[in-house]
Amino acid sequence: MPLLVVGSVALDSVFTPFGETADALGGSAVHFSVAAALLSKVKVVGVIGNDYPVHELDRLAPRGIDWSGVERADGESFRWKGKYSYDLQSRETLETRLGVFASFAPKLPADWRETPFLFLGNIDPVLQLNVLEQIKRPKLVVCDTMNYWIQGKRPELMKLLERVDVLLVNDSEARELSGNWNIHRAGRWILERGPKRVVIKQGEYGALLIQAGSTFYVPAYPLEEVFDPTGAGDAFAGGFMGYLARVGSVAPEQMRRAMVYGSAMGSFAVQGFGVKGFEGVDYDAVQRRVKAFVDLTHVPAAARIP
Amino acid sequence: MPLLVVGSVALDSVFTPFGETADALGGSAVHFSVAAALLSKVKVVGVIGNDYPVHELDRLAPRGIDWSGVERADGESFRWKGKYSYDLQSRETLETRLGVFASFAPKLPADWRETPFLFLGNIDPVLQLNVLEQIKRPKLVVCDTMNYWIQGKRPELMKLLERVDVLLVNDSEARELSGNWNIHRAGRWILERGPKRVVIKQGEYGALLIQAGSTFYVPAYPLEEVFDPTGAGDAFAGGFMGYLARVGSVAPEQMRRAMVYGSAMGSFAVQGFGVKGFEGVDYDAVQRRVKAFVDLTHVPAAARIP
Repeated sequence: MPLLVVGSVALDSVFTPFGETADALGGSAVHFSVAAALLSKVKVVGVIGNDYPVHELDRLAPRGIDWSGVERADGESFRWKGKYSYDLQSRETLETRLGVFASFAPKLPADWRETPFLFLGNIDPVLQLNVLEQIKRPKLVVCDTMNYWIQGKRPELMKLLERVDVLLVNDSEARELSGNWNIHRAGRWILERGPKRVVIKQGEYGALLIQAGSTFYVPAYPLEEVFDPTGAGDAFAGGFMGYLARVGSVAPEQMRRAMVYGSAMGSFAVQGFGVKGFEGVDYDAVQRRVKAFVDLTHVPAAARIP
Repeated sequence: MPLLVVGSVALDSVFTPFGETADALGGSAVHFSVAAALLSKVKVVGVIGNDYPVHELDRLAPRGIDWSGVERADGESFRWKGKYSYDLQSRETLETRLGVFASFAPKLPADWRETPFLFLGNIDPVLQLNVLEQIKRPKLVVCDTMNYWIQGKRPELMKLLERVDVLLVNDSEARELSGNWNIHRAGRWILERGPKRVVIKQGEYGALLIQAGSTFYVPAYPLEEVFDPTGAGDAFAGGFMGYLARVGSVAPEQMRRAMVYGSAMGSFAVQGFGVKGFEGVDYDAVQRRVKAFVDLTHVPAAARIP
């Protein structure tokens, strides 16, 4: 079933202990799409300036990414520059230049208004609400946000929460949003504000799917080398939504499987700068990684009742 | 099969954001035994001073704990006083009084020298090596340690590692021991020093079992209330070893199940001060908790190959 993402299409300059990259393809919509396209066709709504390396987007299009909803505006593209700590546990933003993204007003092409699977990438909740006004009866709406909006646009964000099915955030965002340190309390707090489910990403520790009466946990993949965590959360979202769009279902058991596909995509993402972690990754590689994830937590049945 | 633990029998005074307790039953051997005894009979080797509330140990004996290897020495019992941070993520030691523990020299009763399952609680690696000299052909030796010994007795600890089957430590200990921040590299470093398996406890994030060619992950139980993390690691060890002693096996699939029993015991331990988290916990409650753990990571099979 069709899948639509609204988010940023950016150029990232990232410094990690293992190297650096300048003006690499980035932004939530890009990381999301590269991952999701391994499972389902993706339509992207965003904005770029006239300095964007469009040929790089074009090069990704054959993977199943439809960039025709990405507007070209006069000005500079969104740029982010950041530096990670030696252990990749924290990062510092060195520079944010919004450029054409500052006046971004997402407009869904007329024939995209009935897309059943919608991912609202991390943008102003006012714009996220605006997208919801343009879409007709979606089957599943998942949204991301960040501390910046939690602090600066809380009323709008709370209004948005009432209208989304799944909130997908990291642990510090869940804590800040809810005011609860305990992640399970934070999850319950969020469930009481609208979403039927909340996905909480915990970086190197994995991710949780919390819903009324049940919690599901996927650990992170045991990687001895992590190059660049940038975009891992969006790749997770891409795997999660890409899988659900592929199977065309939001049944609870498919949600659990979607979490594993999300984790698999997150594990590819961190293995290279920008979207390079996905180079050479095809559907078979995804299936092998998913199988490895299932094995990672597989508890063998008791040989005998002890 | 018989199970033996050598470790501290102490009195703990703990301050958490939720309350405090003074001179409560504590020490690695106590926390270990209370958990392990839910699955298997346990024999304890340790030392107490003449101020120890022996009646409290006697009260626990009917659960299946044989304290007859606990020596009574003239002097004060081992006391530890600590305070946890508001989020329980870190703790500060306010006071350590070794008392009779300072001159502890573990002596295994003659008829305990063929115990097949041995847990070396967190004590001086010189003493841990000494215990290994006294025991005959054990089926499984698991040992714990801490930063204090990693820093102060590294050569002895390295010698010990060559002779144990499983090292069971927390993530900061694994990192400090190996000099590797990445937990999977740290695990591999340890495997190269002797143990065939390493268990790395990650507190609220769960625990990893690392061995050549495979990694197994158990998340922590989704608790909205954690009262006191003291002893959770030893309770984990008690569940891990108690299960293996119960089934009398060290087969790989039993190791995975043992990890789940360890996690279940850790989750009970944090629900009360000292050993109070285990009040009212019986074998059935353990089985229910284990079942909940299995469900927490259960990935349903694909409904159809998408």
